[in-house]
Amino acid sequence: MKRRVLLTGASGFVGLPTARALAALPEIEVHSLCRSALPPLAGVVPHRGDLLSDSLRPLLDTIRPKILVHLAWYAEPGAFWNSPRNLDWVAASVRLFRAFADSGGRRIVSVGTCAEYDWSDGVCREGVTPLRPATLYGVCKNATREVLEAFGREEGLTTAWARLFHLYGPREDVRRLVASLASALLAGREAPCSSGEQARDFLHVEDAATLLARLAISDATGAFNVGSGQAVPVRQVCETVARLAGRPDLLRAGKVATRSGEPALLVADMTRARRELAWSPDFDLETGLALTVAWWHDFLASQER
Amino acid sequence: MKRRVLLTGASGFVGLPTARALAALPEIEVHSLCRSALPPLAGVVPHRGDLLSDSLRPLLDTIRPKILVHLAWYAEPGAFWNSPRNLDWVAASVRLFRAFADSGGRRIVSVGTCAEYDWSDGVCREGVTPLRPATLYGVCKNATREVLEAFGREEGLTTAWARLFHLYGPREDVRRLVASLASALLAGREAPCSSGEQARDFLHVEDAATLLARLAISDATGAFNVGSGQAVPVRQVCETVARLAGRPDLLRAGKVATRSGEPALLVADMTRARRELAWSPDFDLETGLALTVAWWHDFLASQER
Repeated sequence: MKRRVLLTGASGFVGLPTARALAALPEIEVHSLCRSALPPLAGVVPHRGDLLSDSLRPLLDTIRPKILVHLAWYAEPGAFWNSPRNLDWVAASVRLFRAFADSGGRRIVSVGTCAEYDWSDGVCREGVTPLRPATLYGVCKNATREVLEAFGREEGLTTAWARLFHLYGPREDVRRLVASLASALLAGREAPCSSGEQARDFLHVEDAATLLARLAISDATGAFNVGSGQAVPVRQVCETVARLAGRPDLLRAGKVATRSGEPALLVADMTRARRELAWSPDFDLETGLALTVAWWHDFLASQER
Repeated sequence: MKRRVLLTGASGFVGLPTARALAALPEIEVHSLCRSALPPLAGVVPHRGDLLSDSLRPLLDTIRPKILVHLAWYAEPGAFWNSPRNLDWVAASVRLFRAFADSGGRRIVSVGTCAEYDWSDGVCREGVTPLRPATLYGVCKNATREVLEAFGREEGLTTAWARLFHLYGPREDVRRLVASLASALLAGREAPCSSGEQARDFLHVEDAATLLARLAISDATGAFNVGSGQAVPVRQVCETVARLAGRPDLLRAGKVATRSGEPALLVADMTRARRELAWSPDFDLETGLALTVAWWHDFLASQER
């Protein structure tokens, strides 16, 4: 018998590829939960519901999922770092964990952020790098994780926590780095960016989705980084996107101030996912960015029609 | 103009004396929020509401309190340590903090627990003793504190967090130590207790209430221990209650097993409250226990009538 997975946030940037990655696994049956209608997706049973306001107990008692993959959270670019809405998602998440356990759920995989780590360390390793979130978003994610892990121990559920680094790919919000560059340059507009000396960990969202799907069906517990394990100067990402878009002439490096408090280096140690989930990314940065620029090319062309 | 304080959990063991202590302060106007009806209390405006299910925004928009003292939490003796209901109170608390800030609130005082500390240290000092809660209750309280502090920094609210040690006094749940001893012995029943070598910090609940009221109207921020600062062997407390109740012959020390994981010493460093709130307890242990035994005497007599 197939194990049922319930996925929240399935219409999102990370959620949609995760729904696809889960649906591609033969041993599970995927149910998705979204506030808005989800485009039809092969192998995914869609449900409508609002985690912030609805009681999800009737739905959970009907589906009776064994595994919960909880991705939904407030994610408006820029605003999410310090928005009071993060508190709404702490409340919604812990209520969901509790209702899921009550309905007979056995495993919870939820997502956190590289912003839970103390960024002065540079290389972030699960269980080693101190957790010292500097933003309300990071604090709220970390607090949710603490509650989840203690709740799982108490109730006999296994729990895992996926810390997302810098993901990029199709359908990314146009206010975020790679999407803003690709969309502007392909439309023939100037693309301002920071001087870009800071090194970051960039991963194609479909590789993140593959990792999340493996984590969902594994028995692994605790924190897992979701990154490439490669530190790349932001400048290099900008220049690669510009070259792939055919408009290096429109890149305006240094036109955006680097945010204060930004560390020089922030990269995931990916040993855990490689060893315990036998995961490795399918796309290197060049390939991943090429696919993303191609997606934006098609998307912009479809908008013009 | 008087500042308005909203007090949650005002019908509880700590809540009722805190309501009285707040009402005794000339500069504030006290509003209480309870699920159940509160006995009429001079200087306290009662409101009914359930933090777990109601939207409190209409009430908050009407009262518009400047200060929130949030005591409500799940507290059933024994069960609260590891109950999943702790998650409901994380959710209810962060929703309350957010609604309070939205209604124009300026200061939040909420209560935590000595169970947030790493108990291997013995003496617990705010900002020094590591926080390593070993129970779901302790984890949920600590996570709520993390969210509250980050939220306060972001929204410009001052926040304080009162960590309660072992409180005793009138109206304590009869399943807890001092109440169980006093009620059993005064009724002429045997009172089993542990061998009681472990030393704990006992404070009369009215002294805790005085501290909470001072904290509410101060500008002090961060964590404050709420204890006596004195480590007393549990055995000594049992014997004092038995002597005051006039029935040392009915005390059965060693009849209850000491819980595993119980540290030999757990005591609050009270330097912060003494220095920053000019607080000191009104009752020493002998006086506090005598008042408590007298209260139980009167209570049991009133039950017999």
